Amino acid sequence: MTRVLVIGAGGFMGRALCAELRDRADIVGLDIATPRDDLDHVDWITGSIADPSLVASAADGCDAVIFLANASLPASSQAHLAHEASAHVAATLEVAETCEALGVARFLFASSGGTVYGYDAPEGGLDEDGPTRPRNGYGVSKLAIEHYLRLMHEAGRMRTLSLRIANPYGEGQRALRGQGVVAAALEHVRNGTVMPIWGDGTVERDFVHISDVARAFGAGLDHEGRSATINIGSGEPVSLNAVIDRLRAVTGRELRVDYQSERRIDVHVNALSIERAREELGWSPSVALDEGLRRTAAWWGLSQGSSAT
Amino acid sequence: MTRVLVIGAGGFMGRALCAELRDRADIVGLDIATPRDDLDHVDWITGSIADPSLVASAADGCDAVIFLANASLPASSQAHLAHEASAHVAATLEVAETCEALGVARFLFASSGGTVYGYDAPEGGLDEDGPTRPRNGYGVSKLAIEHYLRLMHEAGRMRTLSLRIANPYGEGQRALRGQGVVAAALEHVRNGTVMPIWGDGTVERDFVHISDVARAFGAGLDHEGRSATINIGSGEPVSLNAVIDRLRAVTGRELRVDYQSERRIDVHVNALSIERAREELGWSPSVALDEGLRRTAAWWGLSQGSSAT
Repeated sequence: MTRVLVIGAGGFMGRALCAELRDRADIVGLDIATPRDDLDHVDWITGSIADPSLVASAADGCDAVIFLANASLPASSQAHLAHEASAHVAATLEVAETCEALGVARFLFASSGGTVYGYDAPEGGLDEDGPTRPRNGYGVSKLAIEHYLRLMHEAGRMRTLSLRIANPYGEGQRALRGQGVVAAALEHVRNGTVMPIWGDGTVERDFVHISDVARAFGAGLDHEGRSATINIGSGEPVSLNAVIDRLRAVTGRELRVDYQSERRIDVHVNALSIERAREELGWSPSVALDEGLRRTAAWWGLSQGSSAT
Repeated sequence: MTRVLVIGAGGFMGRALCAELRDRADIVGLDIATPRDDLDHVDWITGSIADPSLVASAADGCDAVIFLANASLPASSQAHLAHEASAHVAATLEVAETCEALGVARFLFASSGGTVYGYDAPEGGLDEDGPTRPRNGYGVSKLAIEHYLRLMHEAGRMRTLSLRIANPYGEGQRALRGQGVVAAALEHVRNGTVMPIWGDGTVERDFVHISDVARAFGAGLDHEGRSATINIGSGEPVSLNAVIDRLRAVTGRELRVDYQSERRIDVHVNALSIERAREELGWSPSVALDEGLRRTAAWWGLSQGSSAT
């Protein structure tokens, strides 16, 4: 069976991916902490990607490596850009070149469809070949890593593929660190607190269910197409206000919001064209937003009628 | 008078820039070796940009810093990408953030119009807002640095400006390290050796005279426009064969070439749109190619009739 190392396996995306690959791969999971979840089909290694010998021992003998770890966060990536470049970009490339040296055939990288473009989506969605002008250090780092990995791919050093993931949401996502508007909203529903919204809520985002993201990485393990960069999203922009309304409907509960002044770094409309994913990965999203929000609310114990409001 | 630190002051571009700024700035020149040229109006500091205290003492009290140093070369930038990211990108950002911390008002960066785009120029030339797909690690590093510096600019941390320089040529350029086709050709003329050409010589490039490049940086010191990235070139693509023919005419000497199989990483036509430079810098090239080649040949002692062929 294929042996796959998942780096960042304990996170939201990592756990979904380990579940997706359960029956088709021997999975080695590397993360800074071992998760408490039921993922006992994974061989866990606890440690940092900054430890080259640990990475080498984890990747040794693997056919593919899937890199989901984030050395920084969008909000905090602005303060120390030299540190961004070394701790995020160089550190990721270090791992990739270690994998190459070990003869790993394939390296998949979780890039960010929400930050690498940096401008409003045109009709039909953002295209992988279009301009890229990230508005934060996190996006610049993701983009730089993509480019370096593409060079490795084009030079025939190692097959690489960067998936530009839109806004992933779903079961298992915690409301942490300012990421994940759906998880944040459900936490406010549960706690009865007021959710702050940047701007007037008309900002549109491309929400993709975590199980579809996991399937995209699974498809990436068999990718033989020519591209080194592929968008993964729903292809359909939805406003924050619409998501919040749907969550009210799905949970049958109150969700109060407080509109705050817009952050300058936000684009108004983010939506990805997913034509290339259809063509090269045979992938398209299978979980519609309403269904995905229902599942997510159920995971939070907040389905309509699950308890008295 | 304005005090300007030029990092990489001893190189081809640095020496031309120091000459250009002679009467309008107090110049501090930092380089790994002190040049032998007559640049005694420059306060020289010898050392590496990897030494933070040296950089800080050089930049302290400066109004502007012009960063011309290259931590890598296009040809060798492919082998160790993690090293590229740390020794080139992170190291440059380290210098920029040191300058910011010292209160330097303006940071100009020499980017590469020949490598950051990575695809054939359309009619009218490559546009700063267009896609960017560098074909080597050097280009990826230049592009990543540009993006991080743009974020500093947009956040109001420090004014930054990246000039995407096309193919600079002119007096003072040595035929070194595979860069500078004009200098390489003139060295072959002088030595009577055969010049290797990658491909059939129909590849077109955008040649810009070094004095025009120096004037562009000078204009950059007064830049108040909104852009953080501006192309600097001639705007007119010229084939290698045409340059070689003109050098034969200018020198009145033989220049034999040997056409070799094309490198995959070369784009066929590189030419930059220079509209933004006209608008935001009030800059346009002033030295036509024939004039520039004549001056360059004269500097090599290879003007027509300067000695018997």
